Amino acid sequence: MREVSIGIIGFGTVGSGVVKILNDNADVLKARVGLPIRLKKIADLDLDSDRGVKVDKSVLTTSVEDIFNDPDISIVIELIGGYEPAKTFTLKAIENGKHVITANKALLAEYGHEIFRAAQQAKVDIGFEAAVAGGIPILRSLREGLLANRYEKVLGILNGTCNYILTAMYDNPGVSFDQVLKEAQTFGYAEADPGLDIDGFDTAHKLTLILALTHGIQIKPNQIFVQGIRDIDAFDILMAKEFSYRIKLLALIISHGQDVEARIHPTMIPQSHPLAGVDGVFNGIFLRGDMVGDQLFYGKGAGKEPTASAVVGDIIEIARNVVHGEAGGVPPLGYSDQWKPTGHVLDMSGIRTNYYLRIQAKDQPGVLSNVSGIMADHSISIHSVMQKGRHASATVPVVFLTHRAREADMRLACEKISKLDSIEGQIKILRIEDESLS
Amino acid sequence: MREVSIGIIGFGTVGSGVVKILNDNADVLKARVGLPIRLKKIADLDLDSDRGVKVDKSVLTTSVEDIFNDPDISIVIELIGGYEPAKTFTLKAIENGKHVITANKALLAEYGHEIFRAAQQAKVDIGFEAAVAGGIPILRSLREGLLANRYEKVLGILNGTCNYILTAMYDNPGVSFDQVLKEAQTFGYAEADPGLDIDGFDTAHKLTLILALTHGIQIKPNQIFVQGIRDIDAFDILMAKEFSYRIKLLALIISHGQDVEARIHPTMIPQSHPLAGVDGVFNGIFLRGDMVGDQLFYGKGAGKEPTASAVVGDIIEIARNVVHGEAGGVPPLGYSDQWKPTGHVLDMSGIRTNYYLRIQAKDQPGVLSNVSGIMADHSISIHSVMQKGRHASATVPVVFLTHRAREADMRLACEKISKLDSIEGQIKILRIEDESLS
Repeated sequence: MREVSIGIIGFGTVGSGVVKILNDNADVLKARVGLPIRLKKIADLDLDSDRGVKVDKSVLTTSVEDIFNDPDISIVIELIGGYEPAKTFTLKAIENGKHVITANKALLAEYGHEIFRAAQQAKVDIGFEAAVAGGIPILRSLREGLLANRYEKVLGILNGTCNYILTAMYDNPGVSFDQVLKEAQTFGYAEADPGLDIDGFDTAHKLTLILALTHGIQIKPNQIFVQGIRDIDAFDILMAKEFSYRIKLLALIISHGQDVEARIHPTMIPQSHPLAGVDGVFNGIFLRGDMVGDQLFYGKGAGKEPTASAVVGDIIEIARNVVHGEAGGVPPLGYSDQWKPTGHVLDMSGIRTNYYLRIQAKDQPGVLSNVSGIMADHSISIHSVMQKGRHASATVPVVFLTHRAREADMRLACEKISKLDSIEGQIKILRIEDESLS
Repeated sequence: MREVSIGIIGFGTVGSGVVKILNDNADVLKARVGLPIRLKKIADLDLDSDRGVKVDKSVLTTSVEDIFNDPDISIVIELIGGYEPAKTFTLKAIENGKHVITANKALLAEYGHEIFRAAQQAKVDIGFEAAVAGGIPILRSLREGLLANRYEKVLGILNGTCNYILTAMYDNPGVSFDQVLKEAQTFGYAEADPGLDIDGFDTAHKLTLILALTHGIQIKPNQIFVQGIRDIDAFDILMAKEFSYRIKLLALIISHGQDVEARIHPTMIPQSHPLAGVDGVFNGIFLRGDMVGDQLFYGKGAGKEPTASAVVGDIIEIARNVVHGEAGGVPPLGYSDQWKPTGHVLDMSGIRTNYYLRIQAKDQPGVLSNVSGIMADHSISIHSVMQKGRHASATVPVVFLTHRAREADMRLACEKISKLDSIEGQIKILRIEDESLS
C-alpha cells in the first residue's frame, strides 16, 4: 500500500473545508498516517461553483457510483446531510466494504442502529466525531479516554446558533429575540429557516448520540423532552442576571442509578458554572464522571474548518488502522449488540428540578397568596420572589424561583394558576440547573 | 478468550485507585470491553497496609517476576514512578510481550524513545494518558481527534500543587508563598519535598510528552527553560490583579513555522483568558489548532481516582484491541521513526514576549529615566509603569510592563539596571502571555 484513497460525497461547506485541510496540511497528515492521503473522487451535482479550494477537475464527478465502485477508495465521507439520499449512500458504501465518515447527526440519531449494525457485519468503521460539537473531540473522549467512569452528568451547549443568540441578548440588555435572530441570520450564524436550531431539534439529535455512548441507551430524538429558545425574551435575560444566572440552551443527561434524565431546554445556570462562560458560537460540554470528577471541553462547535478538522481527524484514525490492518467492525457502545442497557430514560413528568416561574399579575391584593397557595397545594415550595418593572400598566410581572419540585406537579400548578382571575396571559416556566439550590 | 488479565506493579495511591475502579465499575467495564477484566496480580513490597480497597490476598505478590512470567497477563500497569526500577520493569514487560500502561511522566520524558522503540519491535502498546493532566483525555485528543491540525499554541496548567498555591495566594491577598505552601502540605496538596512540583520539573516532564505528540520533537526536560513559582510573592499577585492579570505556572508551546518555543514559567495571563478560571488543584489545557481554532480542556489533573480513571481508560482501550486482535505496535508521533521533525525548539534567548519587570528603587529623582534609558538602549519599549506601596521605607517597588521584547535583550538590560546605584536587591522578571499586547 502506497497511499490511502478517499472519496467525498457532497462538496458543500464542510466538504470544501476537508479539501482545504487535505491540501494545506498534507505534510503533517502524511507524517501522522504514515502514508499520503489521496483524495480520489468528490461527488456533487454542482461541479462548477468555486469553493475557494484547489481541486483537480478530474477528481470531480456527478455520480456517487464512481466512488462506490472504485476499488482504491477505502474511506467514503458523507457530507450531504439530511436523511435521504444520505442513508442510502451510507449503506451502499458500507455494503461495498468502505469505511464511512459522516457529520450527519440527524441520520445517526434516527438510523444509527441500522447503520452501525451494517458496519459491524461488513467489518468497516463509522467515524462520526464531526456530528457533535464540531471540532471538540468529545465523542472520542466519551468512547475512549473517560470510559472508566459512570457518567453521572453531562450538560452540553451543543448549538452555536442558539448560543450566539442567547449571548447577544445577554450582552445587549433589552434587545428582542427577533432582532438578534435577524442579526444572526445576516452574519450567517443562523439559517434562513432557523427552526432546526432554535427549536432544539439539532441539539436533540446530538443528545441521542451522546446518550448512546454514555449510557448505551438508544432513543429517538422525538422521544426526548425538547423546548427551544424562541420564547426567551429580554425580561427573562434580565431576571436571570438579577439572580446571578445565565440562560443557555442545554442538553442535559443526569443519571439516577440505572435510569437517566435526558432533556433539552433553556436552562438557568449560575454565572460561576464552567458553562456560563461558553459564549457566542462556541460549544461546551460539562461532564461529571464518578471517578474523574468534573471536566469541561470547550471549542468551536460548527463552521467549515472546525467541522472539517473533526472529519479529517477521523480520516487519519481510520487510515492509520487501514495501514496497520486494524480497521473495522468495533461498533461504539450503544450501537453494539453486546451492550444491553438495564436502565431507561425517565419520563419528563417524573423529574425533579428547580423552576423559574413568571406570571403577569394584576396589581391587586391577594395575588401572591393565591399563587403561592396553589404551589403549596402541589408540594412546590418557593425559594424567592421578585417583582420588577414598571407599575404604570395594570399588570406586573412576578417571578418565582422554586425549591426542587416535580415536573408533573409544576405543570398542574401552572394550569391552575393560569385560571386565576388575577393572572393575565401565559405563564412561563424555565428550569434551573443549580446544585447549590435544594 | 474469556477475559483479559492484567497485572499491576505498585500498590500505592494510584494503584489502589485502579483497583477501586475495577471493583466498583466492573459491570460497565465488562460491557465496554466486551469481556471481563481480571486483576490477576499486584506486585508490591508492602503486602500488609490497608489500601481501603477489597482485594483477594492471592492476588498479591512481592515478586514482579510473577507478573512477567504469567502467560495469562496481557497488560502490565507500572505505577511505581521514578526512573528505576520502573524502567527495567517496563522494558522487561515489553520484552515478555506485555502491553504496558504507565502514569510515569519522568520515565517517558527521559527514556520515551527507548521504551516506544522496544514496544514497536515487540508489537505491544504503551498507554500513558495518565502521565499528563490526570483524568483529562488530552494526550488522546492530541494524538487522535485533533490530528488534522497544525498545533499553533498549547498552554497548559499541568501541576495541581502549583495551581493550588497560586490560587490560594490570589484568593488571600497578602499571604506569603511559604504560608500557603505549608498549608498545601498539611492538606496533602503538596509533597513534603515540594521541589519537583514548585520548581517546575514535573511540568517540564509533561511538556516534553506533549511536544513529542504535537510537533514530533523529542527533547529532554533539562533542555527546556524552566522557572518555578518559588519567587512569586504577595506583591506580584497584587500587581497582577492591578493589571487585570492572573499568574499561572504555564507550560508554553508556541509554533513559529517549523520551529517552536517550549518553555515553563510563571506567566501573567489576562483575567479573561480561558485558563484564568482554572483554579485550585484543577488542570487546564488551552490549545489553538490552525483549523479547529481555540479549545479548552479542564478537569482534575491529579489524585487517586482521576489518575486511575486515565489508567483504566487505557486498560479498556488496549483490552478492546486485544479482544479484537488489533493491539500493538503503532507508536505515537514523536516516538515513531517515521516522523522526522524538520523544526527544532528555539533557544530561549531568542524568544520575544511581554515582560513584567519589578525593581526596588531608591525614592530619588532620575531613577525612572535611568531605568527606561537602559531599556531603550536594548530595544525594550515600556507599555506601562506602576509605583505602588508605602513610601515609609527608603526604597519603593516599581513595576514596568513592556511591549514585546527579546529575552536576550531583557536579560542584558536587567544586568545593567541591577548595577544602578539607585536600585536595591534583585530585579524580578515575569513573562506575560497576552495577545492584546503588542
